[in-house]
Amino acid sequence: MAPSTVPLGYYIWKRLASLVTLLDQIYDVPELTWIGTCNELNGAYAADGYARIKGNPAALLTTYGVGELSAMNGVAGAMAEHAGMIHLVGMTSRPIQKAKALIHHTMYPEMDHAIYIGMSEPVRKTTMAEEIDRVLIEGVKSRLPVFIYIPLDIVSVQLDATRLETPLDTTIKNESTDVEDEIVKSTLELIKSAAKPAVLADVLTIRHKGRDLMRELVDLTHFQSFSTPLSKGVIDETLPTYGGVYNGIASFPGVADAVHASDLVLNIGPLLSDSNTGGFTRFIKDEHLVYLGHEYCQVQGKKYDGVHLLPVLKKLVEELKKDTGKYNIPRSPKSTKIEVPILSNLKSGKIEQSYTWQRLGKFLKPNDIILAESGTAQFGMPDATFPPNSQFITQIFWSSIGYTVGACLGALVAAKELKHPGRVVLIVGEGSLQMTVQEIGSYIRYGFKPIIFVINNNGYSIERAINGPKQKYNDVSMLWDHQKMLEFFGARQETGIASKSYRCETVEELEKVLTDEDFNSTNSIQ
Amino acid sequence: MAPSTVPLGYYIWKRLASLVTLLDQIYDVPELTWIGTCNELNGAYAADGYARIKGNPAALLTTYGVGELSAMNGVAGAMAEHAGMIHLVGMTSRPIQKAKALIHHTMYPEMDHAIYIGMSEPVRKTTMAEEIDRVLIEGVKSRLPVFIYIPLDIVSVQLDATRLETPLDTTIKNESTDVEDEIVKSTLELIKSAAKPAVLADVLTIRHKGRDLMRELVDLTHFQSFSTPLSKGVIDETLPTYGGVYNGIASFPGVADAVHASDLVLNIGPLLSDSNTGGFTRFIKDEHLVYLGHEYCQVQGKKYDGVHLLPVLKKLVEELKKDTGKYNIPRSPKSTKIEVPILSNLKSGKIEQSYTWQRLGKFLKPNDIILAESGTAQFGMPDATFPPNSQFITQIFWSSIGYTVGACLGALVAAKELKHPGRVVLIVGEGSLQMTVQEIGSYIRYGFKPIIFVINNNGYSIERAINGPKQKYNDVSMLWDHQKMLEFFGARQETGIASKSYRCETVEELEKVLTDEDFNSTNSIQ
Repeated sequence: MAPSTVPLGYYIWKRLASLVTLLDQIYDVPELTWIGTCNELNGAYAADGYARIKGNPAALLTTYGVGELSAMNGVAGAMAEHAGMIHLVGMTSRPIQKAKALIHHTMYPEMDHAIYIGMSEPVRKTTMAEEIDRVLIEGVKSRLPVFIYIPLDIVSVQLDATRLETPLDTTIKNESTDVEDEIVKSTLELIKSAAKPAVLADVLTIRHKGRDLMRELVDLTHFQSFSTPLSKGVIDETLPTYGGVYNGIASFPGVADAVHASDLVLNIGPLLSDSNTGGFTRFIKDEHLVYLGHEYCQVQGKKYDGVHLLPVLKKLVEELKKDTGKYNIPRSPKSTKIEVPILSNLKSGKIEQSYTWQRLGKFLKPNDIILAESGTAQFGMPDATFPPNSQFITQIFWSSIGYTVGACLGALVAAKELKHPGRVVLIVGEGSLQMTVQEIGSYIRYGFKPIIFVINNNGYSIERAINGPKQKYNDVSMLWDHQKMLEFFGARQETGIASKSYRCETVEELEKVLTDEDFNSTNSIQ
Repeated sequence: MAPSTVPLGYYIWKRLASLVTLLDQIYDVPELTWIGTCNELNGAYAADGYARIKGNPAALLTTYGVGELSAMNGVAGAMAEHAGMIHLVGMTSRPIQKAKALIHHTMYPEMDHAIYIGMSEPVRKTTMAEEIDRVLIEGVKSRLPVFIYIPLDIVSVQLDATRLETPLDTTIKNESTDVEDEIVKSTLELIKSAAKPAVLADVLTIRHKGRDLMRELVDLTHFQSFSTPLSKGVIDETLPTYGGVYNGIASFPGVADAVHASDLVLNIGPLLSDSNTGGFTRFIKDEHLVYLGHEYCQVQGKKYDGVHLLPVLKKLVEELKKDTGKYNIPRSPKSTKIEVPILSNLKSGKIEQSYTWQRLGKFLKPNDIILAESGTAQFGMPDATFPPNSQFITQIFWSSIGYTVGACLGALVAAKELKHPGRVVLIVGEGSLQMTVQEIGSYIRYGFKPIIFVINNNGYSIERAINGPKQKYNDVSMLWDHQKMLEFFGARQETGIASKSYRCETVEELEKVLTDEDFNSTNSIQ
């Protein structure tokens, strides 16, 4: 017989385990896995990357003060980009806190051990030491970071064990299904009469687990469909109806024109930040817009506050499935593919920016998970065409450099748990790599075999492009020997961990590697 | 002729340059030096380490959001341990802030670009965008972090150039010199009549530039003198009157007894945190205590609020200098040295903890700067005896692991500027090293040649000692090859940067290295 109470620490871990189980139907995962990272910021990045691939928030466990402050930038990124995260903070016991003791990790003048709780307030959705269930559900549903502070002396406090028998309900529901029906109905009417309808699928669709629904929508309607820099990969880019990456005036020729010429844009899950809208040059008239967001929906200027996109999208797809013909689908003329211009025909000599990104795109295979670091990789990779079922991780809104090196660890863990068939490909500049490089050691430690492209362009190139092309503050050390990196971090003969490493300065050298069968197979970390 | 106005950006840098010049009389330093670090947390640690050696705060420059949040733990440490820091934060322009644009590094729901200003509030003394002088003076005087937020559009705002002709006055003054005189007078009376007086010199003496005064005090009085874990090195440990490190019940045999048996303890610059007081087991009766702190002074229970130790200590030393005989100095019986017990007589075989720290102490030379990382190095090195003029950097109060690897860069820069004759010796565990390892690359990049001891004890040993000796969460990767570290980060044949690296598992191997002449000379990074 189960005891009627369980310790609080056990309760939290059990609830977290149940979340994994519950949400992914991975009933055969009996326990959570502890993944230690080299530092807290990298840990937060890893938790963020995990969530983006797994679809559920990961739990990040740190100590108070030093740990939670170091992680804070990573948590803030998860907040800004809706990646979700459950941040557990181990604290001093309550009597010690009350006594305001000068314990390590605390500060003058007030010696308030909980001072950091206030500091992180803007980067979290809520905080709660006891209402564990409520906080966990909120964290999963909102895709925003939640915090649980756990004083040392409460870990063994006994909680009601019978609660664990009731699974957490993390389904996203709107208050009124009538409002959902109204939005769906007017949208269907607009679909029926539109001459040139389009789908613009943005990143919050992915975050709120609408990826599959989005693909169904595109497959059912055959509308010309667009992604954004942050959502790239959400639409199958090999589809004949794929329109490209819509990024305002920074889009490829014809893309923005096509979006702006549409008399109906179904815009799902938007995140309207500067780098995701071509620097705020997105121009879609309200009369042509159906906006399904995480905070509100809007149809032709009529706003429905507090209505979440997911149930609406689900109903919309269900209605369309019943009878596409009823909604004038497919219609003629058929929407056409917008061809991506070829930016470079370089066949030999020194590698150039214009050649790099589309070439790396060709290297990708279906199901690959691609991480593009802030900077040139992030701005360059949207120029590439992705194969079907690509998943793209980039932090173009929060833009914390070094992010992908940590996030890649989380993506690797998630891909392993999901038995994901694709490769994990990390593309990172040498300057960003220096921020968080130690986590490469964690890939090796945990036996992962990603392909890592280190784009060594002698400093912070994106910053040089913005300001100070020759200023020393945009320099980073050019002394690192990346060919020795995997060896240093653990892939060596004596450890029995295989690795391969190549240095390519010319197109010929890079072509040789990219077309190498062994390199493509990811038999080892490379 | 100088223009009558100068841009704000220029004004700030000029003021910072003048601080360096003003406080250190280094008039031949015409400009500040930009030192780029691999990431912001390491940058904050470096600024902290610089301040501890240089005596003046360094300026830390980061971007807003990502940068300031990543640095926050390092700034908090400087706050907790009074290292001082001038944190400059570059921000979006004011019109953009006002428009609450979704620029990168910002967040929902409010898009308040200044939200982080509130988040860091607990870890800084003050903030000010315009009152630059006031903030800089406050930062230097308080030895606490100050922040200046600099929106993009105000960098070229013109400021009054004539202000720059007036040097900043950063002298620490108390409101009433009468009160200072009273404290000094009563202290001198107590000195005159004490049978067994002692000096207990703590870390805030060092932070507030009282190190030389403290040495004069000890030299003049010949009182038995003690340091604390945080202030170790402030007293010349080869003096016949040196009593040792007072750390409550965690002191060496005889040390706490000697302090507690004193009928007068001159306690200068105390910081009474857990790890600096043997876990709050410091017992000095008020009637035996003269307490000279940074917030108040206290003589035999009589408290003087708001009186700063430095001017008082200065007057006290001046008075004693005039006529030591007047104050019954020297007195008999003479104070005696308390011998440090030898913890290990290990002559061969596997290296052990008990052997390591005192042996490393013997390796040190006068004027060495020693950094001991949080964990076993921090708790072990106080057992060692230091040569004269040692400077010891450890973050025993804030205890953020990885700190010393960043702080060492700052200490190296400061030592170079000061033309300091000693070596810089970093002692760090392999787990802490993993947190911030990339900054080793910055030592090499900037041509520094510290001696780095990596104590590889298979995980977070100090944590194993506290809880979970065999738990996986105390493991770190054991796959790193530290023998390849300097090579990877840039010290290789083809770069022309020399380095040496040794792996020692036995006492014999370590003895061979420690007694090697070349190793001792620091001709290269090792």
